[in-house]
Amino acid sequence: MKPSSSISEPSERAVAAGGGLFDGVLARGPVREAVSDRAWLQAMLDFEAALAASQARAGLFGTDVAEAIAAACRAQAFDIDEIGREAADTGNPVVPVLRRLREAVGEATGGVVHHGATSQDVIDTAAMLVSKRAVGPLLQDICGAAQAAALLARAHRGTPMIGRTLLQHAVPITFGLKAAGWMVGLDTAADRLGDLRDSRMAVQFGGAAGTLAGLDEKGPEIVHRLAEELRLAEPVLPWHTERTRIAELGSGLGEAAGAIVKPALDVILMAQTEVGEVREGTPGRGGSSAMEHKRNPIAAVSARACAMRAPGLVAELLAAMGHEHERAAGPWHAEWRPLSDLLMSVGSAAAWLRDSLEHLEVDEKRMLENLERLGSGNDVGSAVELATRALDARATRSAARDT
Amino acid sequence: MKPSSSISEPSERAVAAGGGLFDGVLARGPVREAVSDRAWLQAMLDFEAALAASQARAGLFGTDVAEAIAAACRAQAFDIDEIGREAADTGNPVVPVLRRLREAVGEATGGVVHHGATSQDVIDTAAMLVSKRAVGPLLQDICGAAQAAALLARAHRGTPMIGRTLLQHAVPITFGLKAAGWMVGLDTAADRLGDLRDSRMAVQFGGAAGTLAGLDEKGPEIVHRLAEELRLAEPVLPWHTERTRIAELGSGLGEAAGAIVKPALDVILMAQTEVGEVREGTPGRGGSSAMEHKRNPIAAVSARACAMRAPGLVAELLAAMGHEHERAAGPWHAEWRPLSDLLMSVGSAAAWLRDSLEHLEVDEKRMLENLERLGSGNDVGSAVELATRALDARATRSAARDT
Amino acid sequence: MKPSSSISEPSERAVAAGGGLFDGVLARGPVREAVSDRAWLQAMLDFEAALAASQARAGLFGTDVAEAIAAACRAQAFDIDEIGREAADTGNPVVPVLRRLREAVGEATGGVVHHGATSQDVIDTAAMLVSKRAVGPLLQDICGAAQAAALLARAHRGTPMIGRTLLQHAVPITFGLKAAGWMVGLDTAADRLGDLRDSRMAVQFGGAAGTLAGLDEKGPEIVHRLAEELRLAEPVLPWHTERTRIAELGSGLGEAAGAIVKPALDVILMAQTEVGEVREGTPGRGGSSAMEHKRNPIAAVSARACAMRAPGLVAELLAAMGHEHERAAGPWHAEWRPLSDLLMSVGSAAAWLRDSLEHLEVDEKRMLENLERLGSGNDVGSAVELATRALDARATRSAARDT
Amino acid sequence: MKPSSSISEPSERAVAAGGGLFDGVLARGPVREAVSDRAWLQAMLDFEAALAASQARAGLFGTDVAEAIAAACRAQAFDIDEIGREAADTGNPVVPVLRRLREAVGEATGGVVHHGATSQDVIDTAAMLVSKRAVGPLLQDICGAAQAAALLARAHRGTPMIGRTLLQHAVPITFGLKAAGWMVGLDTAADRLGDLRDSRMAVQFGGAAGTLAGLDEKGPEIVHRLAEELRLAEPVLPWHTERTRIAELGSGLGEAAGAIVKPALDVILMAQTEVGEVREGTPGRGGSSAMEHKRNPIAAVSARACAMRAPGLVAELLAAMGHEHERAAGPWHAEWRPLSDLLMSVGSAAAWLRDSLEHLEVDEKRMLENLERLGSGNDVGSAVELATRALDARATRSAARDT
Repeated sequence: MKPSSSISEPSERAVAAGGGLFDGVLARGPVREAVSDRAWLQAMLDFEAALAASQARAGLFGTDVAEAIAAACRAQAFDIDEIGREAADTGNPVVPVLRRLREAVGEATGGVVHHGATSQDVIDTAAMLVSKRAVGPLLQDICGAAQAAALLARAHRGTPMIGRTLLQHAVPITFGLKAAGWMVGLDTAADRLGDLRDSRMAVQFGGAAGTLAGLDEKGPEIVHRLAEELRLAEPVLPWHTERTRIAELGSGLGEAAGAIVKPALDVILMAQTEVGEVREGTPGRGGSSAMEHKRNPIAAVSARACAMRAPGLVAELLAAMGHEHERAAGPWHAEWRPLSDLLMSVGSAAAWLRDSLEHLEVDEKRMLENLERLGSGNDVGSAVELATRALDARATRSAARDT
Repeated sequence: MKPSSSISEPSERAVAAGGGLFDGVLARGPVREAVSDRAWLQAMLDFEAALAASQARAGLFGTDVAEAIAAACRAQAFDIDEIGREAADTGNPVVPVLRRLREAVGEATGGVVHHGATSQDVIDTAAMLVSKRAVGPLLQDICGAAQAAALLARAHRGTPMIGRTLLQHAVPITFGLKAAGWMVGLDTAADRLGDLRDSRMAVQFGGAAGTLAGLDEKGPEIVHRLAEELRLAEPVLPWHTERTRIAELGSGLGEAAGAIVKPALDVILMAQTEVGEVREGTPGRGGSSAMEHKRNPIAAVSARACAMRAPGLVAELLAAMGHEHERAAGPWHAEWRPLSDLLMSVGSAAAWLRDSLEHLEVDEKRMLENLERLGSGNDVGSAVELATRALDARATRSAARDT
Repeated sequence: MKPSSSISEPSERAVAAGGGLFDGVLARGPVREAVSDRAWLQAMLDFEAALAASQARAGLFGTDVAEAIAAACRAQAFDIDEIGREAADTGNPVVPVLRRLREAVGEATGGVVHHGATSQDVIDTAAMLVSKRAVGPLLQDICGAAQAAALLARAHRGTPMIGRTLLQHAVPITFGLKAAGWMVGLDTAADRLGDLRDSRMAVQFGGAAGTLAGLDEKGPEIVHRLAEELRLAEPVLPWHTERTRIAELGSGLGEAAGAIVKPALDVILMAQTEVGEVREGTPGRGGSSAMEHKRNPIAAVSARACAMRAPGLVAELLAAMGHEHERAAGPWHAEWRPLSDLLMSVGSAAAWLRDSLEHLEVDEKRMLENLERLGSGNDVGSAVELATRALDARATRSAARDT
Repeated sequence: MKPSSSISEPSERAVAAGGGLFDGVLARGPVREAVSDRAWLQAMLDFEAALAASQARAGLFGTDVAEAIAAACRAQAFDIDEIGREAADTGNPVVPVLRRLREAVGEATGGVVHHGATSQDVIDTAAMLVSKRAVGPLLQDICGAAQAAALLARAHRGTPMIGRTLLQHAVPITFGLKAAGWMVGLDTAADRLGDLRDSRMAVQFGGAAGTLAGLDEKGPEIVHRLAEELRLAEPVLPWHTERTRIAELGSGLGEAAGAIVKPALDVILMAQTEVGEVREGTPGRGGSSAMEHKRNPIAAVSARACAMRAPGLVAELLAAMGHEHERAAGPWHAEWRPLSDLLMSVGSAAAWLRDSLEHLEVDEKRMLENLERLGSGNDVGSAVELATRALDARATRSAARDT
C-alpha cells in the first residue's frame, strides 16, 4: 500500500478565503489562501486521514476503515464558525472537529479515528503542512523577485549611477551592482526557506504526553508511516515542547522580510520626485486622480509595509519557545496566529516586490544626470566585474540544481 | 444643527464577523466584532457622513446633501471582498469605497463626498473610532476581572497561604493580598486605557498634505465640527505623520496584557496538581474525557496565550512611528493589522481572565496544608492591612468617579 | 527629623562611567552616566540609607545609627567588579553589597542594616531612583529638541515647500508646519514621561513576600517615610510582582523614541543631495575627508540609530511582566538591562536630535526650487494658521505651568 | 607568503573587560569578554593588519610595510575612552582609530593604512570576527548543556515520572525522555550556530560604495586574500547593505535562547517546593540565610532571565535590515549593540543552563510519589525506546563528525 492518494494538495480543494478590507494591500498573492482557516482545517483533517492510513498499514485495522475516514476528511463539509465557537470549551478546535468527523464516519469507524493521538499532534502537524504548502508559493514569489533583480543586474551591470551613503552622494556605482545585491539577499533568504521546508517540516505524533502510549510497540512505526503519508520529515523525537522547528521557520521568514525590505526601500528612494531614477510601470496602478504629475510606487511601498510586520511576529514566536513540561500552558496557543500572519505578510511582501521589480522602469539618463551633479567622476571600480560574478555564481548554482 | 444622529454606535449595525477556526480561543468576547472588517468599513463611512454634516454646518452646502450622504453610509450595503481586491490598485481601500459611495448618492451629490479629504484622513479617523469602540467592551472585561479580583481579595484577605519566591516556599502571605495585587495591576491598566480613550482618540483631517488646502479658511472650523460629530478629540494639528496617538494606545494595550498575564500565570501555577489551591469552576469546560482526574484551567491558559501576543505587536506599532514627510511609504499601512490584532488579543485575554477569576474555586484547606508543609509559621505581617488598604483606595476612587 | 539630606543627587557623586567604543555615537549625553553601574549601586545604597533613616524616625532605633549607615552608603567605597562576581552566588548583587555595608558600619550597627527588607526591595527601588534621575536630563534634551523645533516652526511658518506623500511630490506645505508637527510629537512624549516620573516612580518595600513581615505594625509607616526620604511615590501595595510601573516607563520611552525618529528621518531625507533643503551645521562634524562635497547629517542619523533600539527593548520589558507568585523566576532579572539600555538609547537619541535641530541650516531657496519643479502651485492652505495655533497652544501651556 | 600569523586569537590578548554590577548574573561565562569593547577594537585592528598583509601579498607594497602595520595593531595600545568620545564627530569609531594607527606607524607607512577601505568595511568585518570568536565559547556551553542533558537522558531513560500538560497531571513519561527532548533542542540550536559560524561569517570589503574603487583591478584578489588572512568566508559580493548574515546570526542566537529556556523552565517547575523532583546541587549557591528550608534554582532562573532578552534583540536586528542605498542612515549603527548583547545574553544563558544541568540532583523517589498521587498508572509507552533512539542518533552523528 503506497502513500495514500487521498492527501491531495490544498489548491485543489480549499474554498477561497473571504477577501478582507485590507487584504488587497496586506495579503496579496497566493499565500493568503494557503494559511486560511479552511487550509488549516484541511491540514488537520489530512493528519487524521493519514493517521488512519498509517495505522491500517501497520495492521491496526483494515484499509477500508482508513479509506472511510479519508473520504470524510474534506474541509468543505465542516462548519468552521461552529467549530471555532465550540473550541472555547476545550481550549482548541480539535475536539469539535473530531466530534463531527466521528459522526460523519459512523459509530463503528469513529472509534478508531484519532487513535493514540492528542490535540497537539493534530495542530502541530497541521502547522507543518500549512507552512510547507504556504512556503511553496511564497518561494515562487521570492524567486520571481530575485529573477527580476537578476535581469536588472544583467541589463544594467554597466549603467553608471551615483552611490549614496547616509543618503548623500558618495562615489559612482552601477545600477546592476545595486540590483545584484538585491538578488543575492533574496536568493539567500529563498535558499534558507527552501532548506527549512525540505528538512525541518516534520510530523508530530506522540499522544497525550509524547510517549506514544496506547499503541503497544507500534508507535514508532506509525510515526514513520505517517511522515511518509504526509511527505513530512520524521523527527527523532516528538517535538511537542521542543519548538526549534517553529522558531527556525519564523526566523527564516523574518530574514526573508528583511531581504525584501532592502530593494523595496531602494526603489522608493530612487523613485522620489527629485531623484527620478526609477518608476513602477504597472499599468493602471499608482496614479493619483488629484495629482496627475504623481506616480506612486505602490508595489514597493506595500512590500515594505507587509515586511515591516516580521520583526514583531518573529519575536512573538521566539518568546513562545518556553513550553512547560509536556504541553505548554499558553505558549503553544500563542504560536498559531503569528505563524499564519508571518507567512501571509512575508508572502504578500514577496508578491508585491516581485511586481515592483518586474515592472520597474529605469531612467538611465536621469541616473547619469544625478551622477554628474556633483562631479563625482565615473570610476565605478570593479562594479561590473562584481555584478557579473554574482550573476555567474547564480547561474552555476541554478544549473547544479537542475541536474 | 446638532451633532448628527446618523452616527450611531456600531453595535446596532455591524453584521457579525465570521467566526474563525481559532477565534473561540484567541478572539473571545465582544472586541472581535468591534475590530472586524465591517466595523472598520463602517467607521470609514462614519467619517464621510460626519465630514458632510460638518461641511453642511459650515455652510459649504445644504443639510439635505449631507443627509443624503449619511443615508448611504451603511456598511451592509458594501461588498467588502470587492473593495479589498480593488484596494490593491491604489494602496488602500478608500478609493473603492468612495467610488461606491458616490455611485450610491448620485452624480450631483457625489461631487461633494470626501470634499477636501485624503485617504489617510479616512483611515486614521476610522482607526480612532474603531479603537474607541473596541476599548469600551475591552474595559468592561478588564474591569470585570479587576472586580472579581477585588471580591477574592475581600473574601480572602485573611486566608493564609505560603508566599513563593522563585517558585520556592518563602514566608506566609494571605490569598487576599495576592488577589489585591492582581486587582491593582488591572485597575492601573484600565485607568490608562480609559484616559487614552477619553483624551487621545482624535479626529484626523488635513487633506492631501495636512494643510487643509482647498477649504478656503473654513478648514479649522470643519475639523472642530468633525470632532464634535464623531465625539472624538480635536487635535491641535493634523497628526497624519505624528503617531504618538497610535503608540500610546498600543502601549496601553501592551501594559494591560502584562497586567492580565500576571494573575493568569498565578492561577495556572496554583492550579497545578501538586499545588491544588485553586481550580476554575466554569461548568462544562476544562474537563478531559481521557483523563477524568484532570481539570484544565482553560480560561487562565487562554488568557495568557492571548496576552502573549502583545509585546511583539506593540513593537510593530512603535517601529512604525517613523513616518516620512507628509505620508509614510510603508509605516502607515504597517499599523493597520497590529492595531486590530492588539485590540482583539488583549480584549480576548481580558474576557478569558474575567471568566477565570469569576469562577475561581479556592481551596483554603489545601492552602493551609501547603503552608504548613515546611513549617513556615503563620506570621502574615501586614498582609490583611495592606489588602484592606488597597480595597479601600479602590472604593474611594470609585465613589469619587460616580459623583 | 526631616527627610535626610544624605540622599544627594547623583551628579555630585557618581564617578564617570567608562567611555565605551561606541558610546560617542550610541550613548551620547548625560543619561549614560545616570544609568551606569555606579549610579545603580548608589541608588541601592540610597535605599539602605533611607530605610535606616525611616526606621529611626519610626522609633526602631536611634538617629545616630541611621546616620552611621548613611555615612557608609557611598558608591565610591565599593568595588563594583567584586560585587558583580559575587552576585552570581545569590542571583543578584544585593547580598554582596550588604556584606560590605555591614562590614563598613561595624557589627553592632550592621545588625539593623536592611532590616525587614529583601533583595528585590533594594533593586526595584533603585530602578525607580535610577529611572527618575535619568529621566531628568533625558527630558531636558527632548524639550531642547522640541524647543528647537518650535523655533523652526516660528521662523518658517510661512516658508513654502513641497509636501511629499509616499516620498512623491504632493501639494505645498510650509516648513514651519512640518516643524510644528515635530514639536507636537516631542512635547507629547515629554509630557507623558514627565507625568510618569512625577506620579509613578514609587518606592518598593515589602520584605520577603510583600507582607512587611517582621516589622510589627510599623511596616506601612516605614513605607510612607521611605517614600518621603527618597522623594518617590508611595504605592498602595508593594509592587514586587505588579509591573505596570516598569511597563509604563518603558512604553513612555518607546513613544519618545518614535517621536524622535520622525524628525530625524525628515532631516535625513531633506538633506539628501538631490533634495538639499536642510543641512546640519554643527562645526567640525559630518565632513568627509575623502569626499569634500559631502556633509553627512551625523546627528540625525545617530538619533535615528539610537531610537531604533526602542521597539525591541520595550517588547523585552512587556514580555517580562508575567511575574510568578511573590518573586519571578527570571522575568524580574530580565528587566534590568533593557530598562537601562532603553533610558540610555532614548536619552542618546534625544541628545542627538536636539543637536541636529539646534544647528539645522534651512535652504529656503532650494525649498522653493523644489516646490516649483512640478508646478504644484503655491496654495499652502491653512498651514500658517495651523503652525501658529500649535505654537500658541504650546506657549499657553508653558505659561500655565510656570504660574 | 602564508596567512599572517600576526592575527592571533583574542584570548591571548584581550584585557579582561570590567566586571559590571549585574554581570555575575547576566553576563556569565566567556562570551562577555569576547564581545567586550576591547575585543571589538582588536577585531577592527585585525582587519587593518590583514588588509595590509593582503595588499602586500597582492603586490601593492612591500611585506615589511604590512608587518609594521600589523605590529601596531594591538588593542592594548589604544585608549578606548578617547576613541569613543571622538567617534561622535564622524558617527563611528573608525576615524579616531585610524588616526592613532597612522601616528603609530609613522607618516610614510600611514599613507597605506586602510587603503581602499571604508569605515563600514572595518566594523562589519570586525562584527564577523567578534561573532565568530564569541560563538566558539558559546557553543562549548550549549554543547556542554546538551551533553549534561544526554547524561540525564541516559541515566534516567527508564525513571518514571508523571507527564504534565497545561501543568496538570496527564500520563506517565520517563525523566530520560524529557531530558532527551532538552538535548535535541540544544543540539539543533548548536548545529545551526555552528553552520552559521563556519559558512556565513564573511569578510566585508568594498570601499566607499562597495565597488572596490581605487584598487585598479586588484580589488577582488584582495577580498580573496583578506578572507584567507582572517579565516572568514569570501562573499560573492560586498554585503554592506545586504544584511542576511547579521539576521541569520541573530536568529540563530534567538533559536538557541528558546532551546535554553525550555529546560530552564522545566527545572524551575520541577524544583518547586510542592513538586520537589529536582534541585540544583551546585555547592555554595542558592541558599538563603533567612530561609534555611529553601534552595533556589539560581542557575536555571538566571539562564531563563538571560535567554528572555533574545526575542526583543532579534527583533531589533531584523528591523534594522532595511539599509538604504550604499550605506544605511541609522540601521547600520543600530546593529552594533543588539548583536553584542545577544551574543552575551545567549552565551550567559548557555553557561547558566550547563551549570544547572551538570549539577542537577534528581529525586526519583519523589518522582514516583508524584506519579502515584492520582493513580495515573505506569504505562510509559515507548518512552524508553524514544529516548534511546535520540541518544543513538546523537552518538552516530557525533561519530560521523569525528571521522
